[in-house]
Amino acid sequence: MDPVDNGTEELCSIARALDVLGDRWTLLVLREADLGEVTRFVDFRARLGIATDVLANRLGALVEAGVMEKRPYREKGARTRFSYHLTGPGEQLRLILGALQQWGDEHRAPAVGPTMARRSAERDRPLRVAFVDDADSVVPLADVRFTPTASFPS
Amino acid sequence: MDPVDNGTEELCSIARALDVLGDRWTLLVLREADLGEVTRFVDFRARLGIATDVLANRLGALVEAGVMEKRPYREKGARTRFSYHLTGPGEQLRLILGALQQWGDEHRAPAVGPTMARRSAERDRPLRVAFVDDADSVVPLADVRFTPTASFPS
Repeated sequence: MDPVDNGTEELCSIARALDVLGDRWTLLVLREADLGEVTRFVDFRARLGIATDVLANRLGALVEAGVMEKRPYREKGARTRFSYHLTGPGEQLRLILGALQQWGDEHRAPAVGPTMARRSAERDRPLRVAFVDDADSVVPLADVRFTPTASFPS
Repeated sequence: MDPVDNGTEELCSIARALDVLGDRWTLLVLREADLGEVTRFVDFRARLGIATDVLANRLGALVEAGVMEKRPYREKGARTRFSYHLTGPGEQLRLILGALQQWGDEHRAPAVGPTMARRSAERDRPLRVAFVDDADSVVPLADVRFTPTASFPS
């Protein structure tokens, strides 16, 4: 798992994911977009208590990265404003948010206990994030190995 | 998923996890500790190409947070040095690293394709990170809901 860049290109998928996500505000913006179903610039700002320029910067970077898309909307009598929506790749960040939340629940719970639960809509069961194999069998963490592929630089 | 702090305390587990992890270098240090099985200060420095003071700062914060522990070691004829090891909570960060890697593989793969694979040691099967319910059944992302618990501030 060497951060080899082979001369020019970063080859580690974790580092490449962090190029998009590696910032606390960015992940909190994505939390609001996914868990909070927030879309409007003004609502992100109000929910996060984030400075306007910082929010514009983070949302712009997420649009640039193809994780969110920007849509104009116009309320009666008001000027055109913008809303931001998760794209397909953006929706798949839910696994990262779920893994962060689960770790926080287990190791950094507030005094009152976890404030949000993960549940399935269809069967209303509690959910967790786990490693599963290609037969959908859950695999314990201690059985997980990260191994170089043929693309790993020798 | 409002970042309500109830006066003093941040109640969101995602934000609380990010208090420990919300920094690119920190996550790359943890990547090396977990996927790369790096333990020695000098090896983290060499693998990451990170400045000594930044590395000392990040490792110190991870020790402080109970995610890593520091152990002295001494090679023959050399002064005492330190190695850093994941604690139990630190090992559970593997799910977050796996989720980041998987997203990077799917949406930010380098031209040569993913360079690391997730596999089970016991049965040597390919692995992915997924949501599963309390009967260990895999649940699709679209069926996942984040819902407030009784601890969520009203």
